[in-house]
Amino acid sequence: MDLKGKVVIAQGGGPTSVINQSLVGAVLESRKFPQVTRVYGALNGVEGIMNERFMDLTRETTHNLERVAATPASALLSTRVKPDIAYCKEMFKVLQAHDVRYFFYIGGNDSADTVRIVNEQAIQQDYEFRAIHIPKTIDNDLVLNDHTPGFGSAARFVSTAFMGLNLDNRALVGVYIAVIMGRNAGFLTASAALAKKYPDDGPHLIYLPERAFDIDQFLLDVKDAYAKYGRCIVAISEGIKDKFGKPLITNLVDTVEKDAHGNLQLSGSGSLGDSLTALVKEKLNIDRVRSDTLGYTQRNFIGAISDVDSNEAREVGEKAAHFGIWDNVDGSIVIERTGYYSVNYKLVDLSLIAGKTRFMPDEFITPEGNNVTDAFKYYARPLVGSGFPQPSQLRAPMAPKILDIHGKPFHS
Amino acid sequence: MDLKGKVVIAQGGGPTSVINQSLVGAVLESRKFPQVTRVYGALNGVEGIMNERFMDLTRETTHNLERVAATPASALLSTRVKPDIAYCKEMFKVLQAHDVRYFFYIGGNDSADTVRIVNEQAIQQDYEFRAIHIPKTIDNDLVLNDHTPGFGSAARFVSTAFMGLNLDNRALVGVYIAVIMGRNAGFLTASAALAKKYPDDGPHLIYLPERAFDIDQFLLDVKDAYAKYGRCIVAISEGIKDKFGKPLITNLVDTVEKDAHGNLQLSGSGSLGDSLTALVKEKLNIDRVRSDTLGYTQRNFIGAISDVDSNEAREVGEKAAHFGIWDNVDGSIVIERTGYYSVNYKLVDLSLIAGKTRFMPDEFITPEGNNVTDAFKYYARPLVGSGFPQPSQLRAPMAPKILDIHGKPFHS
Repeated sequence: MDLKGKVVIAQGGGPTSVINQSLVGAVLESRKFPQVTRVYGALNGVEGIMNERFMDLTRETTHNLERVAATPASALLSTRVKPDIAYCKEMFKVLQAHDVRYFFYIGGNDSADTVRIVNEQAIQQDYEFRAIHIPKTIDNDLVLNDHTPGFGSAARFVSTAFMGLNLDNRALVGVYIAVIMGRNAGFLTASAALAKKYPDDGPHLIYLPERAFDIDQFLLDVKDAYAKYGRCIVAISEGIKDKFGKPLITNLVDTVEKDAHGNLQLSGSGSLGDSLTALVKEKLNIDRVRSDTLGYTQRNFIGAISDVDSNEAREVGEKAAHFGIWDNVDGSIVIERTGYYSVNYKLVDLSLIAGKTRFMPDEFITPEGNNVTDAFKYYARPLVGSGFPQPSQLRAPMAPKILDIHGKPFHS
Repeated sequence: MDLKGKVVIAQGGGPTSVINQSLVGAVLESRKFPQVTRVYGALNGVEGIMNERFMDLTRETTHNLERVAATPASALLSTRVKPDIAYCKEMFKVLQAHDVRYFFYIGGNDSADTVRIVNEQAIQQDYEFRAIHIPKTIDNDLVLNDHTPGFGSAARFVSTAFMGLNLDNRALVGVYIAVIMGRNAGFLTASAALAKKYPDDGPHLIYLPERAFDIDQFLLDVKDAYAKYGRCIVAISEGIKDKFGKPLITNLVDTVEKDAHGNLQLSGSGSLGDSLTALVKEKLNIDRVRSDTLGYTQRNFIGAISDVDSNEAREVGEKAAHFGIWDNVDGSIVIERTGYYSVNYKLVDLSLIAGKTRFMPDEFITPEGNNVTDAFKYYARPLVGSGFPQPSQLRAPMAPKILDIHGKPFHS
């Protein structure tokens, strides 16, 4: 007997460039089932459920849904609210009142935890209800997933940015430090390495939250790379920690915000990069030292979307409808790699994903802890998609000198 | 009688995403003339001439030249050196020794000044010599030019970035401040406005170096926009100045570097954005305030190159060969707009361009000085090229409430 009722879809946490593909995949697929009476989009995640702010996506045009699918950031808007038991009980009054039987929540491990709590309420209240967590995070830090939708496009932006930054730093040499998003997992920072084409290309050093950051070793590394290349490009994660596990930013910045999940504010500030810049200038006596914090553009740049990521994000949305409505089961969708390159999707228990963090495996990080291995590059390359940019250098021979004035070496 | 000898091409100042199109245009066109004995590329601008570091581009393959043309940042590397008379005299020894008769220098107004000084030396020493300045600058601040190669692609990056940043800020509301490159001219900062599609889209406020920045007025503006939209996105130029013409950054940051041209270091630091963020938090008591400094990616992102910009950059390079070799004249190439949208190229006297800065005309700035006009958008739109991204919002109707719990307004 088919479970008849409404579908509610919502988006939580930080936006990604392809999160709306998942939304649209779930909406279009859900609209095909006769037992689905309406497909609602809750605005601002769980807040929208609490406040009955539902957009009736059964009445959205297919054309506009396709346009929205290709648009970054959460079209249903997002939330950082983490529901407690009381909050969930209130949400249920709303879901029951609206005869909602299918709840699809697109988000990261915090959102998976929300789905888990919501679903527990449904079970406790003996309300027949299907809850599916649709994975999404640029951090690529959901356990059991080969990778997560959103990561490939963020990695494409970061690596594409590093291609240009490398060439810029080659043209006007110095030390350049770019701070990249990623609170606990270093995947996105590591993806800067995909920018490398020629042996002298940056990033020359990559620092990940999976390895304790030692300031003295960092300065030695920069000194060595600068001596070798006549310049140095560093990719460093915003979530970098010292050997006591304390985020470096807390040692450097006086006031640091925390969100409702107890997470420190790492993005939307240039402090970490500026502090490291000052350190390199002071300790290594190098003239030109610059830093950028790549910023929110990493997760929402409409000009660098990976087609592979986009297609997979669409598929996990569709699969939510398949698992929830055809199969009548709850869980979290995970991406499994089945070839190079192919994937499949499975449903796992919500408790296996909720609130857990996946880290970079050891084989992706060099023994020195200041770079990534070819194994990582092999893993990540398909995820940034087709048409990946290919910058090129001149390779003409040098002309003979006539006057033979001694010049500086050419940083080729 | 054709002037027989070598061509030297060099690139100076900050890289752009299309500066290598100009290089390759000049190289390929120069290689067609029988009186051109060799086409040399000087490495690191005037430094390469001084040190006889010439790459023989007559021996570069056409395929690789085309690949390099599509690659951002100066393939011949760059320099911030500003030659004085003594430096120029040394350069001339080299140019004469190598029988160089054509000098094409790709750069901004500092580089135009270099070309002027070099050419004056040639005249004084009665050495027959053609010197052409090929325009390039993301700042769009060369006088007599409708616009400059490099600007369109930088504007495409900035406006594309703001499309995503707007959607991100709409999904997770707050005040967001993005600091954009542009020391004296506000064109690039202004181009953030091209991101706007829907009436509530950001940037809601735009601050340009052409208008004195008043902190109290800024806070009032942000307060008003936040009240109106429930959020606020600000685009602000790194070169913003107070009413005494003093860069805001000097009031905020203790140690500020200067380069050889006496210019303050504005890029490669998040200080300005962080200071403004702290100010808004403190004075307006708004919880979520974030800033990003868009950074060097603005001038070298390989994923957001404007085709219009790219084609024009190629043409100004070709025109250097036409003016210098066919017409046997010196000068600076300028872009003239001849239709909507079409351009033509003229040669003007070097002294008319060298060291001068063009500013945003008054009709491009609103009377309040905190935004740009439609006249600016009409002017700038063709420059960002074809296939400009088009983000879309959902527009389905809201579903009726049943429980009618009072909710927060939807920031549509």
